[in-house]
Amino acid sequence: MEKDFEFVELFEIYKGLLTEKQRDLFFSHYFLDLSLAEIAEQEGGTRQNVYDSIKKVKTKLVEYEGVLKLREKFSKVKDIANKIKNESLQEELIDIIGK
Amino acid sequence: MEKDFEFVELFEIYKGLLTEKQRDLFFSHYFLDLSLAEIAEQEGGTRQNVYDSIKKVKTKLVEYEGVLKLREKFSKVKDIANKIKNESLQEELIDIIGK
Repeated sequence: MEKDFEFVELFEIYKGLLTEKQRDLFFSHYFLDLSLAEIAEQEGGTRQNVYDSIKKVKTKLVEYEGVLKLREKFSKVKDIANKIKNESLQEELIDIIGK
Repeated sequence: MEKDFEFVELFEIYKGLLTEKQRDLFFSHYFLDLSLAEIAEQEGGTRQNVYDSIKKVKTKLVEYEGVLKLREKFSKVKDIANKIKNESLQEELIDIIGK
């Protein structure tokens, strides 16, 4: 579950680098909470296909983070933002990197 | 020239998403300042091939920025960093996003 949350965070950051199909699959499973079987039924494929495709998306997300390290960087920026005394600068910073 | 500088900045941010071949081409042209003809000679291709490949890299860089907007975000974070009074927080922030 912890792990899932990590993938959802990576998805929020890197979804723009995925194909529409990949985004839809991931979204259906992790945001709409559809089972692999339900997605397979919708898409007209097999459960195994859906499993493989979602696994591929997760691998891609981890690769993107390995290269760009945005989750790590944004998290560090957030820590710094929380230490800034000037509230308006603090808010500006959080706005840029997302909540 | 202004434009080239922009591509170099995008390259620094997104190079990890390019293939090794794409990185080499871009680096040879923009960092080592080799001409298209010189690169073509090295690679054993034509000047036109090299031109097309580098153009493709530049298109990719612009696409990545269109999606992730990291150049824009990092630049805004830098502006905020410069307004922070606490020097140690300021330095930490600049360290994270790069100079």
